[in-house]
Amino acid sequence: MSVSVFEHPWLGGLFGDPAMAEILSAERTLSHMLAFEAAWSRACGSAGLFDPQKAEAAARAIEGARIDLGDLAEGTGRDGLPVPQLVAQLKTLADPAAVHRGATSQDVLDTATVLALREASDLIAQRLDELSEVLDDLDARFGSTPLMGRTRMQAATEITVHDRLATWREPLTTHRARLAEIRPRVELVQVGGASGDRKALGDQADAVVGGVAKALGLAPTARSWHAMRDGIVEYASWLSLVSGTMGKLGQDIALMAQQGIGEIAVTGTGSSSAMPHKQNPVKAELLVTLARFNAVQVGAMHHALIHEQERSGSGWALEWMVLPQMLMTTGRATSAAIELCQSIETMGSPGLR
Amino acid sequence: MSVSVFEHPWLGGLFGDPAMAEILSAERTLSHMLAFEAAWSRACGSAGLFDPQKAEAAARAIEGARIDLGDLAEGTGRDGLPVPQLVAQLKTLADPAAVHRGATSQDVLDTATVLALREASDLIAQRLDELSEVLDDLDARFGSTPLMGRTRMQAATEITVHDRLATWREPLTTHRARLAEIRPRVELVQVGGASGDRKALGDQADAVVGGVAKALGLAPTARSWHAMRDGIVEYASWLSLVSGTMGKLGQDIALMAQQGIGEIAVTGTGSSSAMPHKQNPVKAELLVTLARFNAVQVGAMHHALIHEQERSGSGWALEWMVLPQMLMTTGRATSAAIELCQSIETMGSPGLR
Amino acid sequence: MSVSVFEHPWLGGLFGDPAMAEILSAERTLSHMLAFEAAWSRACGSAGLFDPQKAEAAARAIEGARIDLGDLAEGTGRDGLPVPQLVAQLKTLADPAAVHRGATSQDVLDTATVLALREASDLIAQRLDELSEVLDDLDARFGSTPLMGRTRMQAATEITVHDRLATWREPLTTHRARLAEIRPRVELVQVGGASGDRKALGDQADAVVGGVAKALGLAPTARSWHAMRDGIVEYASWLSLVSGTMGKLGQDIALMAQQGIGEIAVTGTGSSSAMPHKQNPVKAELLVTLARFNAVQVGAMHHALIHEQERSGSGWALEWMVLPQMLMTTGRATSAAIELCQSIETMGSPGLR
Amino acid sequence: MSVSVFEHPWLGGLFGDPAMAEILSAERTLSHMLAFEAAWSRACGSAGLFDPQKAEAAARAIEGARIDLGDLAEGTGRDGLPVPQLVAQLKTLADPAAVHRGATSQDVLDTATVLALREASDLIAQRLDELSEVLDDLDARFGSTPLMGRTRMQAATEITVHDRLATWREPLTTHRARLAEIRPRVELVQVGGASGDRKALGDQADAVVGGVAKALGLAPTARSWHAMRDGIVEYASWLSLVSGTMGKLGQDIALMAQQGIGEIAVTGTGSSSAMPHKQNPVKAELLVTLARFNAVQVGAMHHALIHEQERSGSGWALEWMVLPQMLMTTGRATSAAIELCQSIETMGSPGLR
Repeated sequence: MSVSVFEHPWLGGLFGDPAMAEILSAERTLSHMLAFEAAWSRACGSAGLFDPQKAEAAARAIEGARIDLGDLAEGTGRDGLPVPQLVAQLKTLADPAAVHRGATSQDVLDTATVLALREASDLIAQRLDELSEVLDDLDARFGSTPLMGRTRMQAATEITVHDRLATWREPLTTHRARLAEIRPRVELVQVGGASGDRKALGDQADAVVGGVAKALGLAPTARSWHAMRDGIVEYASWLSLVSGTMGKLGQDIALMAQQGIGEIAVTGTGSSSAMPHKQNPVKAELLVTLARFNAVQVGAMHHALIHEQERSGSGWALEWMVLPQMLMTTGRATSAAIELCQSIETMGSPGLR
Repeated sequence: MSVSVFEHPWLGGLFGDPAMAEILSAERTLSHMLAFEAAWSRACGSAGLFDPQKAEAAARAIEGARIDLGDLAEGTGRDGLPVPQLVAQLKTLADPAAVHRGATSQDVLDTATVLALREASDLIAQRLDELSEVLDDLDARFGSTPLMGRTRMQAATEITVHDRLATWREPLTTHRARLAEIRPRVELVQVGGASGDRKALGDQADAVVGGVAKALGLAPTARSWHAMRDGIVEYASWLSLVSGTMGKLGQDIALMAQQGIGEIAVTGTGSSSAMPHKQNPVKAELLVTLARFNAVQVGAMHHALIHEQERSGSGWALEWMVLPQMLMTTGRATSAAIELCQSIETMGSPGLR
Repeated sequence: MSVSVFEHPWLGGLFGDPAMAEILSAERTLSHMLAFEAAWSRACGSAGLFDPQKAEAAARAIEGARIDLGDLAEGTGRDGLPVPQLVAQLKTLADPAAVHRGATSQDVLDTATVLALREASDLIAQRLDELSEVLDDLDARFGSTPLMGRTRMQAATEITVHDRLATWREPLTTHRARLAEIRPRVELVQVGGASGDRKALGDQADAVVGGVAKALGLAPTARSWHAMRDGIVEYASWLSLVSGTMGKLGQDIALMAQQGIGEIAVTGTGSSSAMPHKQNPVKAELLVTLARFNAVQVGAMHHALIHEQERSGSGWALEWMVLPQMLMTTGRATSAAIELCQSIETMGSPGLR
Repeated sequence: MSVSVFEHPWLGGLFGDPAMAEILSAERTLSHMLAFEAAWSRACGSAGLFDPQKAEAAARAIEGARIDLGDLAEGTGRDGLPVPQLVAQLKTLADPAAVHRGATSQDVLDTATVLALREASDLIAQRLDELSEVLDDLDARFGSTPLMGRTRMQAATEITVHDRLATWREPLTTHRARLAEIRPRVELVQVGGASGDRKALGDQADAVVGGVAKALGLAPTARSWHAMRDGIVEYASWLSLVSGTMGKLGQDIALMAQQGIGEIAVTGTGSSSAMPHKQNPVKAELLVTLARFNAVQVGAMHHALIHEQERSGSGWALEWMVLPQMLMTTGRATSAAIELCQSIETMGSPGLR
């Protein structure tokens, strides 16, 4: 037992996804937070809200800042989030008048989340493409082989391996199409200030939002989305759709690999401490586990839609507990699916013919 | 206590949504099933798989069929679904050779579901538009009134009623945009036959699928989606996004209506059996309940993605248990939100100025 | 599609549980509510809070009351619950001063729920006992037959049918033991009055609570449990533990029944509209569906623990939406498990020897 | 963002629970696994299955073993669990014939989990007692102060602070009683061997099980519980019951602390990066977050009840993903509730009198 299977000394060997873990690492998150603060100083400088020279100096100091993480942790315990203490540290490194003024914690944290989601989307998209290729290759090799179609877990009529593969392969294309639609609704800079109305920015709000967005490569927004979480939750739902497809693939392979069924052979399967010669389809089962995990977590994200008033401390923190895990889960599901499918040696039941 | 709050003799007065209930009624479902069977006979007739004249005669008989529901129930208990017994009844009314041949139960039931979703989408879309108008009207009346911005349930800085309303209003537009993207992925005829490969249709598969789709006003598909449930589950996720937005609106209103806060006045609020003069914001709380209910149910739909092999009896039946309830929930959430917002008499705290 | 599978014209043939449905029927619920109101009048009469003769007369009028359900529905839509309107109707039948005074809606509804849970517990307990006997009988017939032990869905080492049966059978005994522990925490009369503090009863609170409890066969309480939902939620968790055990049994049987595995033969399995000779283990799959449904619903009940202040309209209504369905699900799971196990003709793989 | 809030460099300052984290640490888990293996060698030695002297020597070597965690991680990636590789390492340190023979991976891992649960139960029980004392102290100080009773988030009738406190306090006693009932159903040694039937132990099974159980301070069992997960899931349900009570407490305090309500004053509340003078009830919101998190996770555990055949790789791994997080959540909920309640300075509305 351990708290997080993704980062556990030995369970991490099964559940870990180093590429996704790096995207979600505290170091990367901190660099996103600092990127926001630097962009903020510069954008406010350009807009005339901060002294432009001091703003540029502050931005550079922020970019090079070494942050005391212990101090952030202490501040988070007290304030519920790390930003007040982060800003306090930054103000010792630069002119306080050119740091964070007019922004709020949620601007920093939500924007950092969005920057992580952008990287995660690229990673998952690339893996979906890679998995598609692996499945196309399997189709080229085994597609015409007969396979017993099974409905309600009972032998039905003969199909081909192609038919089975298609149910794993086609949703990948659709998931890519969905992602293309969702990304513009998620990759939005967060700027709202204290109560989300950008009041502290006065008539320079659009300029500041545009400047920060441009610096970070995100889209500007006409309004903060502090209290409108539908974009984030839609994204989480997509993550679970993807891992669900991997779960179906894994469940199918686990069923195909049963003795007495024998519709697939996979290399590199796991061994048992009690039965050294037993071959276990470990990654197939892992895909089922990951799909069910995300199917549960997605509910938490939907609860977080009930985000009261201008900022819900409880709803927002629920996202923090769940969204990173969903990303890790979908990340690992895609990498494990690729590994599993690459290890397939034969598929189908030639003898049916 | 009762089994379904939506159809309960008295709880239905609170949870019921007659328009959505009609869409999901057994009668309407049966008419969709018969519409599929009639379209099937005709399409197979046109494609030369059935005798064209017998096919047309069968289609007419099917359209006019009176179905013995008790017999369907008995069959469902035995077969797990009503279609074998429905087909048996239809074959007594028309030439058996011109009925259902080449189709399977899932074709009938999934297509009937899709026909219901099409109607449900129209209803919810219309309600989202209506709610948008009601909120625009509130904005016109109270938008400029001051309101205390509240973050973490604490007074923050002054905003306006417009700012609060915008967090309820803007997601409605986004939900409409999402629906426009999702509908083409859902409103797809289901045709697969025994194991989903349309084998029984031979080289007439495209013709039959196209014919059935055209007759029902659905899009044809190059392949059955029997075992690919991502479209249905994406739709369910959207339902919960919509009810989640309603939940945020309801939670906000319940908080605004507190004594000591007094940021809203609503007419027609509920009374108490112990305190006759107490005014309860019943519909505001209802919106929170409905949002949380759907946030739970959406998880069940995501579990149903793990749809093993060519047809999962267990995963598919889980959809039957949950999807209609999610539709009712989102339906009622939208109608209750409209009623609640129409009953708002004042918003904001003019005294803040 | 339909709103409730439990009461649907044809899906009810599969999901329905007439005995549980009767326990949860609106008629039975109403009779529980009236029983509470009659007991209330009498207990307050005995305690001297109401005129004793008028109280007895009122109790008799309440017991014989014919309630206008349409009026209750209308009231529920307005008040969020049926009790204000129920009380209004009762006050036309009896001296208003001897009806409901000092009680509140939650007293009536929670007590009615508890009375239903008592009946449901008896039903499920009886079914658990019956299922135990059926399993013992299977053990007597097939227990010594060899069976391939399967771990991670792979053949492991040979066990016996007895070993497999024991994993279905033993939890039933534990569930019975749990129920015996839980019932005294649930079968508690609810009496709190307006804000749950029984203030309106003055120094006669214990007498009234004791009187109502005795009349209804429930335990009295030192304090109302209006806002302490842990007993109800613990009960719901137990319901899902029970259906989960049935789900394991069903999943095992579905796996045993696969072609190529052939470890079980079951009579009365379902047919297919496309493949008339196919035998589908419908009830085995149903058990998996029901288990997963309850595994989702139990989360909703745990959310309802966050029951704010003296009464949460939103949390309480969430229980109404979910608890009856969980009861139906566990009810049907137990009856379907009995039917399924009674239909087993052979188990195990004698050829292994 | 980060993968685990419990162990995150700065979010850990809010979500972390060092005492529970230590119980769940990889080091402690490994020590439990080694304790099992040592006890196994000794018990098999005493029972005559292993050479007694070699068994004792092996046990000592196991107790002092330094394990290569990287090797465990690699093995876990391949085998799905760390035990085959752990055993391989142990066999290099001791006579292979006196190590692990007759046991299986699940025996080791489940027993290690149970040893962690025993420690966790002690910790949570102690915290429940401590919280009870803190609440009793608040009752002594503020119990007689008037407080507005609030139902459906509306002012109802006047109660006292005692009444509100009682709804936080009473469930703690019940949770303790539940725990006392549940512990004997959970603190059970796991011994099953390859397919769970202890066959490899022959007629010495009881002796070995008894010996291992005694060495570890657990109860022996007549049968392995490999495939019967109801004890673990019941325990997880209890964890969520406890965090749910904390969530109600936190929600109440967040509502009491609103401006315009002012029913509580708490010291040490959090600050805002945008509004330095704002006081945020951070821990009250945290309790709501934690309760909702566990209310979601408990569903995953109930899904894990559907544990197919003699060992479900997918269901079991789902427990690994969820149970440790539930323990951390309930651990932190109890510690945060204590801290929050200790920081209460005033409660109630004396002016109501």
